[in-house]
Amino acid sequence: MIYADNAATTRLDDDAFEAMKPFLLDSYGNPSQPYSFARAPKKALRQARETVAQCIGADPDEIFFTSGGTESDNWAVKGSALMDPEKKAAIVSAFEHHAVLNSCAAISRMGYPVVFVRPDPDGIVTAENLEKHLTRPTRLISVMYANNEIGSIQPIAELCKTAHDHGVLFHTDAVQAVGHVPINVHELGVDMLSASAHKFNGPKGVGFLYIRKGIDIYPHNDGGAQESGRRAGTENVAGIVGMAAALKKNTDLMKETSEKLAAMEQLLTAKLKSAGVDFIRNGSPEHHLPGLLSLSFPGLEGEALLHRLDLMGICVATGAACDSKETQISHVLQAIGLDSTHARGTIRISFGRYNEISDAEAVAAAIVKVAAGRFA
Amino acid sequence: MIYADNAATTRLDDDAFEAMKPFLLDSYGNPSQPYSFARAPKKALRQARETVAQCIGADPDEIFFTSGGTESDNWAVKGSALMDPEKKAAIVSAFEHHAVLNSCAAISRMGYPVVFVRPDPDGIVTAENLEKHLTRPTRLISVMYANNEIGSIQPIAELCKTAHDHGVLFHTDAVQAVGHVPINVHELGVDMLSASAHKFNGPKGVGFLYIRKGIDIYPHNDGGAQESGRRAGTENVAGIVGMAAALKKNTDLMKETSEKLAAMEQLLTAKLKSAGVDFIRNGSPEHHLPGLLSLSFPGLEGEALLHRLDLMGICVATGAACDSKETQISHVLQAIGLDSTHARGTIRISFGRYNEISDAEAVAAAIVKVAAGRFA
Repeated sequence: MIYADNAATTRLDDDAFEAMKPFLLDSYGNPSQPYSFARAPKKALRQARETVAQCIGADPDEIFFTSGGTESDNWAVKGSALMDPEKKAAIVSAFEHHAVLNSCAAISRMGYPVVFVRPDPDGIVTAENLEKHLTRPTRLISVMYANNEIGSIQPIAELCKTAHDHGVLFHTDAVQAVGHVPINVHELGVDMLSASAHKFNGPKGVGFLYIRKGIDIYPHNDGGAQESGRRAGTENVAGIVGMAAALKKNTDLMKETSEKLAAMEQLLTAKLKSAGVDFIRNGSPEHHLPGLLSLSFPGLEGEALLHRLDLMGICVATGAACDSKETQISHVLQAIGLDSTHARGTIRISFGRYNEISDAEAVAAAIVKVAAGRFA
Repeated sequence: MIYADNAATTRLDDDAFEAMKPFLLDSYGNPSQPYSFARAPKKALRQARETVAQCIGADPDEIFFTSGGTESDNWAVKGSALMDPEKKAAIVSAFEHHAVLNSCAAISRMGYPVVFVRPDPDGIVTAENLEKHLTRPTRLISVMYANNEIGSIQPIAELCKTAHDHGVLFHTDAVQAVGHVPINVHELGVDMLSASAHKFNGPKGVGFLYIRKGIDIYPHNDGGAQESGRRAGTENVAGIVGMAAALKKNTDLMKETSEKLAAMEQLLTAKLKSAGVDFIRNGSPEHHLPGLLSLSFPGLEGEALLHRLDLMGICVATGAACDSKETQISHVLQAIGLDSTHARGTIRISFGRYNEISDAEAVAAAIVKVAAGRFA
C-alpha cells in the first residue's frame, strides 16, 4: 500500500509508541495525586510540555494539552467570545477547517457577529484584504496557518500584526503546519495556536492549544484543576507523551523530510506533464505545505479517481478529509473560486515522512493509467 | 505497591491494551475516509459502539465517544442549556464532580439559574428532596450515579421519574459507576449518562456520553461530521477500542469482582475495629460502590495519613481525587455535613479488580500502625 493521505492522519512514529507504552502499562497513576506512584506520570507531563513548547518557541506554561485540533479550535473561538460581554465580532477566513467554521456558527447563534474573509485564487488571505474587513468592533481574528485541502501557507505574522494594530486577538489553526514547517509562536506573535498530534505522527485523540502568557479566555472543558485550572479532565498521559516524542522527532527531521517531499512533488507533477495528463495544481506555488498536492483533472471525477487509485493500493483524498461524507464541492475549492469542472476532478495527495521517493513515481504512474483509460 | 486509589484512575486491562495495539501501529487510517485502508478502523469503531451500548443496555446510535468524563459532563450540561432560549434553570446536587459543578458555573455566567440540592448525611439525594427544589421552570436535572468521594449510589430511576414528571431532562454523571455496578439506561430512564474509560480499566483520554434517542442538545465540540455530526474530531480509534474491551471485561467479571470487593471492605473495617481504631465510615451503608471506603479518623490528619501510607507503599486518596491541590475540606464532605474533626481526618480507599483480598489486610494493618503511633 502507498499511503498518500498524511493530511488526514499519519502513521504513529515507532519511538512515540515506545514512549507511550510505560504510561499505558505500568505508570498508570493519576498525575494529580500526591503519592509517589504519581511522580513518574507527573514528571512525564512536565517534560512533554517542555518538549512541545521548545518545538514551537513557546514557554512551557503557554502549552495546554487538549483532546485534539478540534477541541483546541473550539476552545480558542468559543473561549474568546464568551469572555466578551459586548459581543464583538469574530473574523475568520472562508476556508477555515469546520472546527473553526462550526465553532463560529455556535457563537453566531449566541449573538456574536461572524465575518468571513475570502482568500485569493491562490488560497492566500492577505493582510490588506483582512484590513478591509475590520469595519466593526472585533474580538478575534482566526486564520489557519496552512489550508488542509490545498496546502497554502498564510502570511500569519502579517495577519497577526494587522489584528494587533486594531487591538484584536489572533488565533491560528496550525493543525496542518505544526511538525511540518518551522514555527516560532513568539516570532509570529500569535495569541493562540491549535495543533493535533495525529497530523504529525503522534497518536489520535490528543493535541494542544498554545495560549500566549497574559491572554485570558474561558475554559472549554470546565471541571478539575488540571492544566493550571484551564482545561479540566484527567490527563491523557500516554497520548501527551507520544505527542511530544513525535513532535520532537518530526521537528528534528524537518529539513530532510521537507527536501524529500519537495523532490516528490517535483517528480509527480513532472511525470504527469510528460505523460500529457491535463491538470492544474491548486494553492500557492510559493507558499505551500511540503508534500501536499491538490490536483484538478478536468473531465475526471475526483471520487472515481480516488476509488481507482484505491484499487491500485494507493490512498489519497478528495474534498476535505474530515468531511468526506459530503459529495458537493468543498467549501475550500469554492472559496478560491475554482470552476466546477476543475473542482469536481480534484484530489489531494499528501505525502509524509514515512513515504519513499518511489511512492511519487508510483502515484503518478497510476494517475496516468486512470487518465488514459478514462475509467474505461 | 498496593494501589488502593481506583476511584482516581485504574490500571489498564491487559486485553484492552492488546486490542488497542493494532490501531496504534498498523490500522492507522482515518475512519472518515472512503478508501479500503479506512475499513478496519471504521469497523472497529462500529464494534466498539455496539459493545459499549450492550454493556449499559443502550442502542449503538445512542453512544457518542468523547475525550472522557469531563467532556461528557460539559457537553450534557452546556449542550442542554444552550438549546434553551428561555434560559430555564438547571438543578444539580451539591456534591457533583467539579466537571458538572464548574459547567454549571459556566452556564450560570450566561444567565441560566442553577439550583443546588443538598444530599442527606448518608450522601443520598432523595426524590422527595429533589421535588422540593422544582419550584421554577427547569431544563435539566443532573445527579451523579455514585459519588466519587464517599461512594453513595443515588436512587437514579426515582430521581429521573421526578424529573420526567415535571418535563425536565435528566443527566447522570456515572463516571464512578459504569463498569462497576449493573447499569441499564433504558430501565433507569435517563436522557444522558456520562462515563470515562480510565475509571473502569480502560485508557485515559477517552469516554462517552449516552444520549437517549430523540434528545437534542447542542454539540460541545463543533467541527467535522464524526459521531453522526454531534461530536467533531478525528476519532481516537485505539482509545475507543480499548475502552470497549475494558468495559466488556469489567462487565463480564462484575459479579465476582463485587463479591471480592465486598469481602475486602468487611475485612478492612473489621480489622480496624478489632484493633480499637476510632473511625467512622461515610456514605450510605446500603447503597455504595463496591470497594470504596471513605473513612474518617478523628484526631488524625487525612493528608498526613496518606503520606504515611505512601511511605509504606500504599496509595490512597484524601479529599476529591481530581482536586488534590486544595487543602480545605472537600465540597463533598461539606455537603453531607460532616463535622470538621472527622472531615480533616478523612481518607478514601478504593479497591479495584486488580486488588487481592490480602491488600485489604495490609492496608488495615498499616492504618492501625499509623493510628497507634499517631505519627510518632
